[in-house]
Amino acid sequence: MPIPLTKESDVDVLVIGAGPAGLMCAHALAKAGVDVRIVDQRPKKVAAGQADGIQPRTIEVFQSYGLADRLLREGNQMHTAAFYNPSIDGGIECTGRAPDINAPNARYLFEVTLHQGAIEAIFLDSMTSLGIEVERPVMPTSIELSQDDAILKDPSMHAVKVVLKHLDVPEGKPNTEIVHAKFVVGGDGAHSWVRKSFDIAMEGEQTGALARHLTNPTHSRQNVTDYIWGVVDMIPETDFPDIRNRCAIHSNNGSCMVIPREGDTVRLYIQLADTDAVDVQTGRVDKNKMGPQRLLEVARKSFHPYSISTLHDVQWWTIYIIGQRVASRFSVRERVFIAGDACHTHSPKAGQGMNASMNDTHNLAWKLAHVLRGWSNISLLQTYEFERRKYAQDLIDFDRKFAALFSGKPRTESHQDGVTHEEFLEAFQTFGLFMSGIGVHYLPSAVVHTQHQAYASNLIIGERMVPHVFVRAADARPYEIQDLLPADTRFKILVFTGDIRDKLQPDRVTKLAADMEQPNAFLKRFSKGGIDSVFDILCINAGKKGSLNYTDFPALLRPHWSKVLVDDTDMYGRVGGGGYEKYGIDLRGVIVVVRPDGFVGMVAPFEELEDIASYFASFMHAS
Amino acid sequence: MPIPLTKESDVDVLVIGAGPAGLMCAHALAKAGVDVRIVDQRPKKVAAGQADGIQPRTIEVFQSYGLADRLLREGNQMHTAAFYNPSIDGGIECTGRAPDINAPNARYLFEVTLHQGAIEAIFLDSMTSLGIEVERPVMPTSIELSQDDAILKDPSMHAVKVVLKHLDVPEGKPNTEIVHAKFVVGGDGAHSWVRKSFDIAMEGEQTGALARHLTNPTHSRQNVTDYIWGVVDMIPETDFPDIRNRCAIHSNNGSCMVIPREGDTVRLYIQLADTDAVDVQTGRVDKNKMGPQRLLEVARKSFHPYSISTLHDVQWWTIYIIGQRVASRFSVRERVFIAGDACHTHSPKAGQGMNASMNDTHNLAWKLAHVLRGWSNISLLQTYEFERRKYAQDLIDFDRKFAALFSGKPRTESHQDGVTHEEFLEAFQTFGLFMSGIGVHYLPSAVVHTQHQAYASNLIIGERMVPHVFVRAADARPYEIQDLLPADTRFKILVFTGDIRDKLQPDRVTKLAADMEQPNAFLKRFSKGGIDSVFDILCINAGKKGSLNYTDFPALLRPHWSKVLVDDTDMYGRVGGGGYEKYGIDLRGVIVVVRPDGFVGMVAPFEELEDIASYFASFMHAS
Repeated sequence: MPIPLTKESDVDVLVIGAGPAGLMCAHALAKAGVDVRIVDQRPKKVAAGQADGIQPRTIEVFQSYGLADRLLREGNQMHTAAFYNPSIDGGIECTGRAPDINAPNARYLFEVTLHQGAIEAIFLDSMTSLGIEVERPVMPTSIELSQDDAILKDPSMHAVKVVLKHLDVPEGKPNTEIVHAKFVVGGDGAHSWVRKSFDIAMEGEQTGALARHLTNPTHSRQNVTDYIWGVVDMIPETDFPDIRNRCAIHSNNGSCMVIPREGDTVRLYIQLADTDAVDVQTGRVDKNKMGPQRLLEVARKSFHPYSISTLHDVQWWTIYIIGQRVASRFSVRERVFIAGDACHTHSPKAGQGMNASMNDTHNLAWKLAHVLRGWSNISLLQTYEFERRKYAQDLIDFDRKFAALFSGKPRTESHQDGVTHEEFLEAFQTFGLFMSGIGVHYLPSAVVHTQHQAYASNLIIGERMVPHVFVRAADARPYEIQDLLPADTRFKILVFTGDIRDKLQPDRVTKLAADMEQPNAFLKRFSKGGIDSVFDILCINAGKKGSLNYTDFPALLRPHWSKVLVDDTDMYGRVGGGGYEKYGIDLRGVIVVVRPDGFVGMVAPFEELEDIASYFASFMHAS
Repeated sequence: MPIPLTKESDVDVLVIGAGPAGLMCAHALAKAGVDVRIVDQRPKKVAAGQADGIQPRTIEVFQSYGLADRLLREGNQMHTAAFYNPSIDGGIECTGRAPDINAPNARYLFEVTLHQGAIEAIFLDSMTSLGIEVERPVMPTSIELSQDDAILKDPSMHAVKVVLKHLDVPEGKPNTEIVHAKFVVGGDGAHSWVRKSFDIAMEGEQTGALARHLTNPTHSRQNVTDYIWGVVDMIPETDFPDIRNRCAIHSNNGSCMVIPREGDTVRLYIQLADTDAVDVQTGRVDKNKMGPQRLLEVARKSFHPYSISTLHDVQWWTIYIIGQRVASRFSVRERVFIAGDACHTHSPKAGQGMNASMNDTHNLAWKLAHVLRGWSNISLLQTYEFERRKYAQDLIDFDRKFAALFSGKPRTESHQDGVTHEEFLEAFQTFGLFMSGIGVHYLPSAVVHTQHQAYASNLIIGERMVPHVFVRAADARPYEIQDLLPADTRFKILVFTGDIRDKLQPDRVTKLAADMEQPNAFLKRFSKGGIDSVFDILCINAGKKGSLNYTDFPALLRPHWSKVLVDDTDMYGRVGGGGYEKYGIDLRGVIVVVRPDGFVGMVAPFEELEDIASYFASFMHAS
């Protein structure tokens, strides 16, 4: 029998690119039991360097997938930001230290730093245990979307045809595969092949602006935000006392940023003069003009009077020049998606890139799973672009301000228009919510209904669920509520029952349970996959642990003994209590709907169960 | 060539028995790089049942070996103890709930419950990663100790000859091995073959007493503490509201104990009447007289008016009758040791057995490593029996009181000499320090020198190092100090420097560092293995994190940037601070020596470095 020239196969989701965006996507889908494949052109995984900062919100997301333990074990923690500015004797001095995280409700009060390869390995190993591996080196060579509207509207149809070339197949053997996918996710980086295949434009400033300025200095540099930075990862030898803190060093000899990392490794970001590293003709970085030793020489000038050198060889280095851009759209007809660097690029100073990328696909994955299972309408997928493109634009606005501030000259006698330390520190704190990822806010859409916000005034609908410790009624074990909201594709129905000891409340709770059991209530109406597969119910009481039993609650609200919580301290008064107040919960009882990605989607009082049904009706099929 | 009839081999330590005591021993030795083998007669590891409670102190020990994460992930946590007593209507009622742990300085405020097989698997998997496996089924058939004093005194000699029979060798093939070991540890259970081989007597009450009472009731039962208990592991179906708490149920229909376990499993301890389960002639348990269903029937009577039944099959069950005994010695000439059930047996009501066993060999392992490396005199090994036999005796005293209390009838109108709830609760709290393992106290010996206790009044010499959170000077990351004291066979030298901002203190600290560097100071005098292998120095300052740099301290006190701590809160004021006061540290500066097993061995002011040298001289060889 002749060997067929091309293999042909079907898959539900094909992920192209195994960077942070692609891996988060494939891992989440694999965990959800979705038929997924992930391919990457590079023959090997990343070994060092690249991105390295994980924000507090992203740690929460890792935790929701059961991946935070290893991240915390392997990574460094940044608790402190230190600021250095010019001293009168020509060197630098420490002008202040501040908490690294400025976000009131952060669960993790630090950033984790760890090189990208180690972060990716966390996903890769978990994927292996789920039976999925990155296929590499595999290059996509063509992608084609069905033109048939009927096919496009039916999520069970394989509407995308992708041709893959398996690069490791020996010459002469067939190496081409045609994949028919229901959905394709392009997490293939700043030069995304998927994006280019669909002619999606990147909007924003171009590196061209810098090139024009360099070749013709009369062309203003004013609005150019394409700063040039060198990066060096190394184990330093130094007497600099803040080498294990995140540092912003503004000196009269240049700016520098210190990012302490796993083990004894430290990353330095070093600002370069245009002419140091850029080819004047093209405006592009010319790595030949600048090696790691020259980068360190530049750094050394900023560090004076402290000394710094590298103990061994430099582990990794690069120079980059990058603009602030966002793709004009993130999806092609809700069948092909781009995520991560493929749809937004920005400077790495605030450590946002990898976080934004992973949170893109964290947002997308559960929606794909719901649509593929036939639970939700394909229109749900429109909320991906709606939510994440808005975020990318906010990110770029923020990044532009932050990068400009950071790259600006410090204010001195001769530079009266420079940036003062106070201005920098204030910006650092103002941007804290954004930088931590905690402030991400999704606007009203099919999955964000805000009408009853007042019933849980501090659980902002469209933001991630606020962490807090409650104790379990059955055994008084304290639990961070986020740990009871895993990213398992289920909607979490948090029933805040008020205080069951209050005169009227037991009857109200009993009535609620009876109402929720009605065939037309949302539980039964939107449970095509079975109530327990679509919903996870938690019951949270305002009473004290000693005064009630978990068996006091209606059976519907405690499908398992572990599902009843009380807003009280643990047995030792060390943690817990005050959750109702912190959340601003109405004591007459409130239902909070938390989306599978951990964001608050909806709040309603007991009387407005029908509004919860409307919420689900806006994107789910009735069963 | 003819096949030799017997194989012959050498090993440094041979561990006989792969239960909790043997596994802790082999794991600790393997981690220390010691040449160790472990054999067990049973063909397979334990799958279910057996012991299941891990005390707070034992969790700390797990953590010191890097094993606590998995224990905490897999195990259940008991935070609450609930007490049930006879109600006026003939059933039982909850008379109180209390914290399960009553120990002021406990780091883990709960007990972990998990079946013994899962606990053993934690060691087995970690051992596999260290390249050591339990050899099974292997039965020892003879053991012989050299009679030559010169050999016995030289720890490099293989003074013990053990013959092993490999039971899985096909018939007709040679299955015998002669092992020449430097040391042998018998962790081979209550019927220890090692113990019997050396005619070591078990002291204490015998089951015979019960048998005598049963065959001749005129023989007083007064002092018989051999209560008979049935045990059932199962997933219950029940309306009992405290099924996930540790419960002591005293009813007029019998006593019962509830131990919630991993997942939904619950263990019931059920007190039996003598005649229910014991063969009158032998005084031994007759399992034929009582099955799990009959055990549950007995339990059901105690639970009334609550119902309890088993959802599926009973997972495991047993009946036991056990006395309180301790071996007359724990070692034969410091060459053969017994540990765990081999040298002490007691009732399981307070969940002590497995904990005592593991802590026996935790105490022994580092001493063996030090002697085998030639660092310490073989006499160091005498402190094993000295410390652990005293503890076993204390444990049996405690257990006798606790078991009697627990098995006693509740006080009622007709039983005026019964135990009141208040008596029981008071005992429960009084015994808290002991039950948690936190109160273990070793008396003065070569490794416990108490003369300078006053300089750190609350770090009790001979007790385990008190947990507390300090922050690292270099990066303000908060650390539980116990996590900086791993069980890595090194002595931890904690230099409490006082407040370096105080006028005189910098000079005192500088002088101390210079003194410590002298050739006759303990660091250089007792570092046959190299200073960094024998000692680990931590420097703990009373100052505030913002006011000092880690680079302010003498180089000797900060061999690495991570080694300088400050007694202050983290950047967010959430944890840390107040450690000097809690520990009762003299602000002029104190050195605390923590043993490799986490116990405080010695305290000294800066001026008494020579006393620290005397401490080490009392068991270590000078280099």
